Amino acid sequence: MRITDLTVHDVRFPTSATRAGSDAMHTNPDYSAAYVVLETDADLAGHGLAFTIGRGTEVVGAGIRALAPLVIGRSLEGVTGDMRSFWRSLTSDDQLRWLGPEKGVMQMATAAVVNAVWDLWAKSAGVPLWRLLADLSPEELVSTIDFRYIEDALDPDEAVDLLRVAVPGRDDRVRELIEHGYPAYTTSAAWLGYDDAQVDMLVREALAEGFRHVKMKVGVDTAADARRAETIHAALGGASLMMDANQVWGVDEAISAMAELGRFDPWWIEEPTSPDDVLGHARIREAVAPIAVATGEHVQNRIVFKQLFQADAIDVCQIDACRVGGVNEVLAIMLMAAKFGVPVCPHAGGVGLCEYVQHLAVFDYVAVSTSLEGRVVEWVDHLHEHFVHPARVSNGRYLVPTAPGYSIEMHPASLEEYAYPAGPVWDGLLR
Amino acid sequence: MRITDLTVHDVRFPTSATRAGSDAMHTNPDYSAAYVVLETDADLAGHGLAFTIGRGTEVVGAGIRALAPLVIGRSLEGVTGDMRSFWRSLTSDDQLRWLGPEKGVMQMATAAVVNAVWDLWAKSAGVPLWRLLADLSPEELVSTIDFRYIEDALDPDEAVDLLRVAVPGRDDRVRELIEHGYPAYTTSAAWLGYDDAQVDMLVREALAEGFRHVKMKVGVDTAADARRAETIHAALGGASLMMDANQVWGVDEAISAMAELGRFDPWWIEEPTSPDDVLGHARIREAVAPIAVATGEHVQNRIVFKQLFQADAIDVCQIDACRVGGVNEVLAIMLMAAKFGVPVCPHAGGVGLCEYVQHLAVFDYVAVSTSLEGRVVEWVDHLHEHFVHPARVSNGRYLVPTAPGYSIEMHPASLEEYAYPAGPVWDGLLR
Repeated sequence: MRITDLTVHDVRFPTSATRAGSDAMHTNPDYSAAYVVLETDADLAGHGLAFTIGRGTEVVGAGIRALAPLVIGRSLEGVTGDMRSFWRSLTSDDQLRWLGPEKGVMQMATAAVVNAVWDLWAKSAGVPLWRLLADLSPEELVSTIDFRYIEDALDPDEAVDLLRVAVPGRDDRVRELIEHGYPAYTTSAAWLGYDDAQVDMLVREALAEGFRHVKMKVGVDTAADARRAETIHAALGGASLMMDANQVWGVDEAISAMAELGRFDPWWIEEPTSPDDVLGHARIREAVAPIAVATGEHVQNRIVFKQLFQADAIDVCQIDACRVGGVNEVLAIMLMAAKFGVPVCPHAGGVGLCEYVQHLAVFDYVAVSTSLEGRVVEWVDHLHEHFVHPARVSNGRYLVPTAPGYSIEMHPASLEEYAYPAGPVWDGLLR
Repeated sequence: MRITDLTVHDVRFPTSATRAGSDAMHTNPDYSAAYVVLETDADLAGHGLAFTIGRGTEVVGAGIRALAPLVIGRSLEGVTGDMRSFWRSLTSDDQLRWLGPEKGVMQMATAAVVNAVWDLWAKSAGVPLWRLLADLSPEELVSTIDFRYIEDALDPDEAVDLLRVAVPGRDDRVRELIEHGYPAYTTSAAWLGYDDAQVDMLVREALAEGFRHVKMKVGVDTAADARRAETIHAALGGASLMMDANQVWGVDEAISAMAELGRFDPWWIEEPTSPDDVLGHARIREAVAPIAVATGEHVQNRIVFKQLFQADAIDVCQIDACRVGGVNEVLAIMLMAAKFGVPVCPHAGGVGLCEYVQHLAVFDYVAVSTSLEGRVVEWVDHLHEHFVHPARVSNGRYLVPTAPGYSIEMHPASLEEYAYPAGPVWDGLLR
């Protein structure tokens, strides 16, 4: 099977109209995607996307197009037979790497393309992505990872060993997840743009739906955050509260804000400061303990994650499926997290992210961490109707996906209707 | 004066034909620029560029276009009257920031636009950029800087104090530089794609031209590096040798390679590993001392520079004029470097970079560091003919620029001739 073409779609959903998704830094997001389709000479196509929040989606689209010559014409077997070299060819093209290296727009573009290849591989094998991964041997899995710049923290032999000790019991853990699902938490109840009455109602609904963990947005005004935390805390019963500042604070601001908000006993504070500030996270973590520090959705690559682990800077590793360079790099980060004993709680919520990360979480439990302790996957219940095989949560737990592929394929009608700027929805809004 | 339009040019020079610019990671660069012109309703235009090395320049161009609505229609006075807010409006647009934040393609696009504004400001004041900066009071200078995420290392009051202590003697230092120039070093003698005989000849030429510092590229093959270092070392007399690995090594590889190459007594090893690896640089620095560790040309923003300083990870700070977000962010980094006692040796060589950084180096000496000790500015003698006011080096020293602006304006004929892909040069090459 040969990849014959690559097409890019700019798809945007006008979510800012309801302020779903709003937080301290992203006050009016329009959940969007730079979406890519890899056409083949067979009856299969690979789909992938990078999640964005409106303006600038076209820049990621341009990044994806810049990668097209490195993909078109390749055979699927040639690519999957040496995934490490394929991944390196995208991230270290000797001219394109100047635009990163391995960060921002180009890394997101890489993620979209790389994930589309994994989608194609899983479809061609007739299995969901998590199953494709779980059926690879430790050596095969490790052969997909580029260890450049992380060998001082994890080398290929250690990675194989980590996977080997997790082989016993794989089948039991698969059965367990298929029966019970993977624990989810909800962020939908407490976006920053929602008023207190709305939040109170949504928290009670979430508990009634079976969620045991609820996340609230904080960071614009600590007094208002405290008032809202009080409302939520009162409604929660014994369930857990998490807080998310979305990078709004400097290091000292984060420490003093959490001194105020600590009395509501949050499990974690997420993104207390810049995702680039490894040393800042380490200082915050020391100061706010026993509140956990979580980050990852904006961490650019395995090299920054490596340092977050080396510096004991985080308690919770929030991998994102399309911020770093796709499945290959996520595997590197998961394995480092396992070595350093940091639980992985994937970032989701953005359009397509729940669809993506359910596979990663299932694989993590089945083949890497072998534990569900302190692990939950983010869930936001919107925009799933656009996907051919949407993620599903029941009684506060993700159901294990069963359709072949990476679950990221959208309905052609959605791609068309929400195309930016010429699709009917935007054509109407922009008039 | 009002900014009425923003136009983008994709300009590429086919330098890979001679392998000028080649190094361990960038084997065949075509030195290029995403070039921006801010048109106004007056008789002046602001020019700026982000340096790139060929493929992907169009992605930075798309990034610049995404910023256009934040600039077009603004008055120059409104922008320069509150530069900090203007800068924040580009780097923290609540949808665009998702693409970074503050890194990679979008930060380079920001640099091109921000630098074009400073070019326009300096032209409207009728002075070269370094003079505009040197004529601002400490309070005015500090008011252009966004301290978000760096206040734990440097706050605005400290920044003002650092500038105040450097006020006495400003005029004397200006006169000194006008008379004697600013020390330069050359990289042109030892690109990785050059053979040994060519390198030997070029090193001798550089010494004859007055250079006292020569940099060589290393990193593909340590034995070959050693042989070449021996050739250069023998030719150098008492002049200094620097080495540049362009990120090719992991942390442990860097340490063992420099154990080999240390016998040629290099002043510094530049970019020994990933620019994202603060902790890795700190480990390398400790291991290779007394060889200095230099980095910066790929460091994405002030937040990573902050950590390089906090972690004692570098001996030499190599600011780049258009990798971080333009003049405003360069000022933040220079002031942190001054506080932490790390000399600034700007990165240059790429098309337009010598033109840019000469202003920054002059300002640094005149108004911040007040010292030339351990400070040299990179020089590569090519592509200057495309600039209206090219940088000039004589007897191994940069001449202080005198034309109004930031010296980055290219001849219209160059923009046209080297336009990619439709200009006559590329039209010919691509046929």
